[in-house]
Amino acid sequence: MREKEFISTIKTMLNSNYIGDDCAYLPDLGIVVTQDSLVEGVHFSLDYMTPYQLGYKSVMVNLSDVASSGANPKYLTIALSLPTNIDKNFIEEFYKGAQEACGREIKIVGGDITGADKVYVSVSAIGATEYRKIASRKNAKVGYKVVVAGLHGSSAAGLRQLLSGNKSENNFTKAHLEPVAQVEFGKNIGKNIQVDYAMMDTSDGLMDALSTIANESGVLLEVYFDKIPYDYHLVNFEDIQDLVLFGGEDYGIVAVVPKDLECGGVEIGEVKKGLGVDLRFGQNVTHYSKEDVENKIYNHFEGKNEI
Amino acid sequence: MREKEFISTIKTMLNSNYIGDDCAYLPDLGIVVTQDSLVEGVHFSLDYMTPYQLGYKSVMVNLSDVASSGANPKYLTIALSLPTNIDKNFIEEFYKGAQEACGREIKIVGGDITGADKVYVSVSAIGATEYRKIASRKNAKVGYKVVVAGLHGSSAAGLRQLLSGNKSENNFTKAHLEPVAQVEFGKNIGKNIQVDYAMMDTSDGLMDALSTIANESGVLLEVYFDKIPYDYHLVNFEDIQDLVLFGGEDYGIVAVVPKDLECGGVEIGEVKKGLGVDLRFGQNVTHYSKEDVENKIYNHFEGKNEI
Repeated sequence: MREKEFISTIKTMLNSNYIGDDCAYLPDLGIVVTQDSLVEGVHFSLDYMTPYQLGYKSVMVNLSDVASSGANPKYLTIALSLPTNIDKNFIEEFYKGAQEACGREIKIVGGDITGADKVYVSVSAIGATEYRKIASRKNAKVGYKVVVAGLHGSSAAGLRQLLSGNKSENNFTKAHLEPVAQVEFGKNIGKNIQVDYAMMDTSDGLMDALSTIANESGVLLEVYFDKIPYDYHLVNFEDIQDLVLFGGEDYGIVAVVPKDLECGGVEIGEVKKGLGVDLRFGQNVTHYSKEDVENKIYNHFEGKNEI
Repeated sequence: MREKEFISTIKTMLNSNYIGDDCAYLPDLGIVVTQDSLVEGVHFSLDYMTPYQLGYKSVMVNLSDVASSGANPKYLTIALSLPTNIDKNFIEEFYKGAQEACGREIKIVGGDITGADKVYVSVSAIGATEYRKIASRKNAKVGYKVVVAGLHGSSAAGLRQLLSGNKSENNFTKAHLEPVAQVEFGKNIGKNIQVDYAMMDTSDGLMDALSTIANESGVLLEVYFDKIPYDYHLVNFEDIQDLVLFGGEDYGIVAVVPKDLECGGVEIGEVKKGLGVDLRFGQNVTHYSKEDVENKIYNHFEGKNEI
């Protein structure tokens, strides 16, 4: 969690209103912007990830941030640093993956390429706000519903398989190597909603998103574990609940919106007075304070660290 | 020049109109965007560069790109990757430098921080076009004047001193470690000009900018070496001409604009029919084709590599 300390140092220094959501919202320009990096040996290994998958995932990670602001993802720049043993084929495969993740409507418009000891990718993404209401983690309100898009736990299960040497493609490894961000879900909420709301992607895990929204908004999120969608093959894992709640890198989205908003996704709970997250599991309720969640992430999963 | 080959591969794959200038121009959003990275061991060493200077230079490199498009630099995101031996003091000094380079009007609005083996900085910068004419390297026209802002050769001279172990601060080492981009020069041209024009920063050297503009525009730039401004202490270097023309990292700007435009800077030549650069030195004229310049940069100085 050294990086988390660094981030709080940076936040204090910058003293910026822009910092705190998946994207910075720049109303004067009508855009949101985000930048996220993937570093070899920290976020991935070329032992189990192909250049195509690296390009694909690097883009998806950033599209997820833009979509979870409610904006319309439009443009990307990509900075790529590469060791000398990497050849033209790597670049071609990387960009094939990046373009596949972009689809037809999102364009890669620049960046740079440099030497380095390891593979390093940093992508910056820009979304158009197009007069939408942009989400803030601070805007969950009592009476709103908690909605989730995407399956959770698959990516962490896949990473565990990859790290244990299982390189065969299955739903879990694919969820980790080629995650599909919930772009349409986020975009559509931004397009249709007229009131303040909270939205955040689950890059650091579902519980991290729930807890961050709850604590930033000063409310209690009551969530039913049994309603959370996940791949039923996860029942083969002993720690299925941890995988679903704390796994990370599924790039789903949590939206906390008025109950009457038709927005797709799966309703997993609602907002009440209080603070933190109440997780209901059958008859049991477990309360998660901000500290409970941070400690759990620290002990089990290493998070990413956006400013 | 391996990276140059990679860039041409990427350009072919992306088949993009956006790529080819210091920034990508996104007229639908009214912005320009650029992303440039600095990698430890490739672009700098912590043996001679302080964290403050690294933050300062990382920002200036990107502001230079925005200013040389004629746009108004507004926002930055910064991705920082750091080895485990780096402490909070490094982050504070880095961000002090970054903020100093931003001044009061430009804001750092996001990014991320991750672990890595070496220090890696990737900055993305956004400028507002504010209904300006945005520069293109393709728009130099016969009869236009060639104007340069900033001193050239100092940064390369400074780097040579630093690499030879001379760490005392002087104009040259300062030019390398804390370059000041020609932000006002570029911004003002963009604000005042009504017609097509060419502009490019000299990150890869003055001759690289002259040659790129000439060849992209299909014209000949006739340039008088004696008119090029440089620090007079450069006369102590035997290869002064190479330093001034090919040195790189001074972050000056070359503008090729109508003769009647009042734009500041120093007029060093004019645009004629033909192709490439004619460098006049007293009575002598040396012609530089595109290949001459690329070979010279390849043999003497390693360039940066923007997409």
